[in-house]
Amino acid sequence: MRNSRRGAVDPFIVMDVMEAARQAEAAGRHVIHMEVGQPGTPAPAAARDALARAMAGDALGYTVALGLPSLRARIARLYGEWYGVDLNPERVVVTPGSSGGFILAFAAFFDAGERVALGAPGYPSYRQILRSMNLEPVEVQSSAENRLQPVPADLEPLNWQGLMVASPANPTGTMLDRDALGALVDCAQARGAAFLSDEIYHGIEYERRAVSALEISDDVCVINSFSKYFSMTGWRVGWLVVPEGSLRQVERLAQNLFICPPHASQVAALAALDATDELEANKAVYARNRALMLEGLPQAGFDRIAPPDGAFYVYADVSHLTEDSRAFARAILDEAGVAVTPGLDFDPVRGAGTLRFSYARSTADIEEGLSRLRRFMVARGLAG
Amino acid sequence: MRNSRRGAVDPFIVMDVMEAARQAEAAGRHVIHMEVGQPGTPAPAAARDALARAMAGDALGYTVALGLPSLRARIARLYGEWYGVDLNPERVVVTPGSSGGFILAFAAFFDAGERVALGAPGYPSYRQILRSMNLEPVEVQSSAENRLQPVPADLEPLNWQGLMVASPANPTGTMLDRDALGALVDCAQARGAAFLSDEIYHGIEYERRAVSALEISDDVCVINSFSKYFSMTGWRVGWLVVPEGSLRQVERLAQNLFICPPHASQVAALAALDATDELEANKAVYARNRALMLEGLPQAGFDRIAPPDGAFYVYADVSHLTEDSRAFARAILDEAGVAVTPGLDFDPVRGAGTLRFSYARSTADIEEGLSRLRRFMVARGLAG
Repeated sequence: MRNSRRGAVDPFIVMDVMEAARQAEAAGRHVIHMEVGQPGTPAPAAARDALARAMAGDALGYTVALGLPSLRARIARLYGEWYGVDLNPERVVVTPGSSGGFILAFAAFFDAGERVALGAPGYPSYRQILRSMNLEPVEVQSSAENRLQPVPADLEPLNWQGLMVASPANPTGTMLDRDALGALVDCAQARGAAFLSDEIYHGIEYERRAVSALEISDDVCVINSFSKYFSMTGWRVGWLVVPEGSLRQVERLAQNLFICPPHASQVAALAALDATDELEANKAVYARNRALMLEGLPQAGFDRIAPPDGAFYVYADVSHLTEDSRAFARAILDEAGVAVTPGLDFDPVRGAGTLRFSYARSTADIEEGLSRLRRFMVARGLAG
Repeated sequence: MRNSRRGAVDPFIVMDVMEAARQAEAAGRHVIHMEVGQPGTPAPAAARDALARAMAGDALGYTVALGLPSLRARIARLYGEWYGVDLNPERVVVTPGSSGGFILAFAAFFDAGERVALGAPGYPSYRQILRSMNLEPVEVQSSAENRLQPVPADLEPLNWQGLMVASPANPTGTMLDRDALGALVDCAQARGAAFLSDEIYHGIEYERRAVSALEISDDVCVINSFSKYFSMTGWRVGWLVVPEGSLRQVERLAQNLFICPPHASQVAALAALDATDELEANKAVYARNRALMLEGLPQAGFDRIAPPDGAFYVYADVSHLTEDSRAFARAILDEAGVAVTPGLDFDPVRGAGTLRFSYARSTADIEEGLSRLRRFMVARGLAG
């Protein structure tokens, strides 16, 4: 049957890494997983308990398209708790993961042929979803002195109708402070462009809290999810916060594109919002792992790293060690038994010289992974 | 913030009915729900049990994008059980509901500006999703003598690159027999168009079994879901069967657009596939309800109905009773306390003269609903 041109999106290189790791494990080798972008923990116990109760007494049929009113209200309250922002629950749109949020936002805000600016490195699916919806990603090479985040000077000369930023970012973990985020919001609003803020890693920050775009302006679209801080990747539930003037359009699109987000996941998510003790305990593990990474990676020769403000990633410049991050990652897997992600998915231009290390798994795994990485690098004469 | 033009999809008129019904109930009135397009039953007990067990022992993180291999294999086996078709599990793509299946298929098979033929009346989201993805729905007015299904003679004069059919259909419940479906597949393939078969109501048929497009050709895309026969609407899990030549493109798109379908729902769906006794008991209720409808609707004056081969709907021509099905449905709700769906969502041209009655709920509700409908019509002098 016919295939579309717009559907011919790039392959995910990390999938090759994951498959190679799976094959190594199937062959009996032990692999430390520093390639995966998700918590190793399940949904909070309270979330699972709430769903178990609901399954006993409720048919869990369709919800309304924008999500359970109780969940929307509770998410709105989170903005008071986290940011001191008074948010109208009507503006909260529960989505099938942040993935569903991207599809919904791109359909609601942009017409075919329009251009959306993105910083590189960045989450690869931004540009693939944009392309599959006939939008054009405009990738801006961010610089190390700007924490690998775009700044208005990068963007001003270019033609775009939307700007997507992420703070903390994937793959770098770097954040935009209030001034930096505000400057980007101004830059977009000055030209009448849509401003989209991917806040999926909010809650996972270590030295200062992340700033929400909603602290700066109501005329933005925030994308968030229960996947990361709330430890619910596989549940596929996230949310948007949209301006009031977009609500009817977003609601009609959501009705048609999704009918509703998964009901069971919404029930679990509502309870997860109050599982603070368990979630903070997860975060304490990330914090320990991060401290180990910040000590261990430089000792292993990976000393050119982006400021790891949040999320659970360290992004390392290895361009002085290799011109082929894919082959280098493969060697690390084959020789050290550590799966890491080459930067090519995140930055097609400079990613041949970068690696992403995830520290989302257990502390024991991080310790073992770091020691394997150091042995690998010492054996190659790349670390002392 | 800016709104897109393509996102300006039509409102769902049924939502107004549901909101009016909700308000009536909030005001203390008792409403019989013949407007809803979903089972009143929960997911099968075995499905809920399987999920409860999985939640105790598995983190339920991301699955691979195409879905759990065990689920894909079990779905492939269903094609042997239901149709005698030997299906390669690699061709099964688990999706976030059939809604996700539509998005994925439309992105994989069609480029912006292409045209997809649909029969009217039909499921309204087909045309809204198409529009939001810059595709053009080409709606063909089907005729009563063709069971309100399109036929090649309707389609041949028109310009289109894809054809979507549904059997059993929503809102009519009518089916395409093997010859009728085969003629449509031939009609599409003769012009190199993609053929998409929405088989979401398969399993809910009464006098003869529904024919799958896969019984006719491998070069088609089948869309199905656990929502209807498997009684799992709110779980948002469905599947596509795609030709082998489309698999890589569909996989890459699914990775980027969705990451994966909800893991918990996949676990439940796998168990639902073997919950035959409970599912057949649900179907026996639909069969009883259908018999009551086929007797009671004509007695109530609704005697111009499409052949109700499958699904849980009766679609009635009321053009001799009203020129405004929306007002007529509103009067039925206000005066009789029965919520029914005006046909305008399904057929913008002729829907002002049609109503859809759902019989998916309990038999007691159907009995009470029919008696209320009859009293309403007798009071208006429209039934004897």
